[in-house]
Amino acid sequence: MTSHFTIDDVFAAARRLDGVAHRTPVLTSRVLNERVGAEVYLKCENFQRVGAFKFRGAYNAISQLSAEQLARGVLAWSSGNHAQAVALSARLLGASAVVVMPADVPASKMAAAKDYGAEIITYDRYTEDRTALGRALAAERGLTVVPPYDDVRVMAGQGTAALELVEEIGQVNALLAPVSGGGLMAGCATVASALCPGVRIVGVEPVDGDDTKRSLEAGHRIRIPVPHTIADSQAAEIPGELTFAVNRRLVDEIALVTDDQLVTAMSFLFDTMKIVAEPTGVAGLAALLAGQVRFPGARIGVIISGGNISATRFAALIGRDAQALA
Amino acid sequence: MTSHFTIDDVFAAARRLDGVAHRTPVLTSRVLNERVGAEVYLKCENFQRVGAFKFRGAYNAISQLSAEQLARGVLAWSSGNHAQAVALSARLLGASAVVVMPADVPASKMAAAKDYGAEIITYDRYTEDRTALGRALAAERGLTVVPPYDDVRVMAGQGTAALELVEEIGQVNALLAPVSGGGLMAGCATVASALCPGVRIVGVEPVDGDDTKRSLEAGHRIRIPVPHTIADSQAAEIPGELTFAVNRRLVDEIALVTDDQLVTAMSFLFDTMKIVAEPTGVAGLAALLAGQVRFPGARIGVIISGGNISATRFAALIGRDAQALA
Repeated sequence: MTSHFTIDDVFAAARRLDGVAHRTPVLTSRVLNERVGAEVYLKCENFQRVGAFKFRGAYNAISQLSAEQLARGVLAWSSGNHAQAVALSARLLGASAVVVMPADVPASKMAAAKDYGAEIITYDRYTEDRTALGRALAAERGLTVVPPYDDVRVMAGQGTAALELVEEIGQVNALLAPVSGGGLMAGCATVASALCPGVRIVGVEPVDGDDTKRSLEAGHRIRIPVPHTIADSQAAEIPGELTFAVNRRLVDEIALVTDDQLVTAMSFLFDTMKIVAEPTGVAGLAALLAGQVRFPGARIGVIISGGNISATRFAALIGRDAQALA
Repeated sequence: MTSHFTIDDVFAAARRLDGVAHRTPVLTSRVLNERVGAEVYLKCENFQRVGAFKFRGAYNAISQLSAEQLARGVLAWSSGNHAQAVALSARLLGASAVVVMPADVPASKMAAAKDYGAEIITYDRYTEDRTALGRALAAERGLTVVPPYDDVRVMAGQGTAALELVEEIGQVNALLAPVSGGGLMAGCATVASALCPGVRIVGVEPVDGDDTKRSLEAGHRIRIPVPHTIADSQAAEIPGELTFAVNRRLVDEIALVTDDQLVTAMSFLFDTMKIVAEPTGVAGLAALLAGQVRFPGARIGVIISGGNISATRFAALIGRDAQALA
């Protein structure tokens, strides 16, 4: 089934997203390059519409629905960014959207999805199964489900982030991206492996959310308990089926990062580059800064996947870090 | 004497800065426009070299020194950003730099000036006169003083920020910029008044640092006590002589903003636009968001003057604000 997913799907997604998604900036920093001993290119999806790469996949999927499907509306489950992405994409395409979100998601993410006109339904992510809940609701109301990652259209959309990166700066020797359900990684790995011969593809997970690392080691998908991590966009318990089939083939290694390493990377971006990224957003950068992976002298592409963190939550995390370091 | 300062000086500065200073982005936000009821264009000097507009003036001044002056070196006094600007400009032009800084300046600003190779000399800004100290030291060592604002070359350099803004987006109906010594304001007001007929020019000061507001009302320069404000780049006690002569002629009004309004504006930029600005940097935005000035339906240019605040200091300010609001 995944043999059908190729870089051509990403090229097609790029055409659908042209003029709709932001072509986000690729930022560099002399200080960062000196620190890491390499040429680092940050593809800044924190500046994407809805503040995360998720818009790419959601829009690419919803834009392929029939007029009848659009008229009935769409449904998604998400810990935050995919919810906003589906809400905005649906609005842009004239469809209504229902979003199933964990009750403990940051208030800013819930408010954003509401602002885009979505109906929000909450659940307890430690006791309830959002997939079952979402599917039942969709069946009841005749809504089309927009999966957060396990969908070729979604994977193809996410891959356009890497495509734009390579189009702008040329080939890279290594590509780092956060892994949760695996859609971003599957899309970007497909692009990088096709366009950058010999590229080293590294996924990054929180230490407490290492389902993809374990799954790659086992050779099949492993389910872990709901991870407790500040990286609230990486709360996956098990890799997607379609995404894992791709990532198993293309991902060279998974690096793990701690909450403290994520906070350090967020602070680095704040202090040095004056930009805001959420904990999951800096996973790749955190792995580099912490020396979890090293590519001396290489050209390294890093997907900064999102920027949806409020100033108050950022301040709380920095405070916590300052305490931990004291 | 100031009759000699015209937009032609700014055009000449722009040629000197071409390829040396960053042409910083002009950012917009639908959310911001809806909030303010106008079209707001943020000229983001937080992304300038050294993290603030100050690089423009310092480089424009130092690049006009003679080979002999460059060989002897330069000296500057500054609460932070001008220090970094002079340090980097001197290095780029092959000169050594001595910087006189208040001992209580944020550590990150002192470290940055040191990183650019400057020699740092500290003083107590509540008891010592930095100007006298700096001039004595310069005389003793044969260094050329690079004034932070009261210098036509410096004013001309700062004006290039407004010049780029108007070149990129066309005429504006209003222009807002922070005022400390008045160099940025004098340069930008000269550009805006020349290129945007009927433009309303608004300077913004902290409520506790309203020396320019008082001076404009009095018709002559008024000295105030050293202001206590979180806007550490706006610690001026009295407007510059040359800058005041320009601003008295061109500035329509001064808006005052509180520390809380500055923190709110910093949080807005963080949450909504994913970018980092320092307290002084958001002065113009704070005045708009707080409704201190209103220009319904207008095209408003706002200079975001700098981004030099550390994540830890930002977190402390947000925490303080959260407490104050509780």
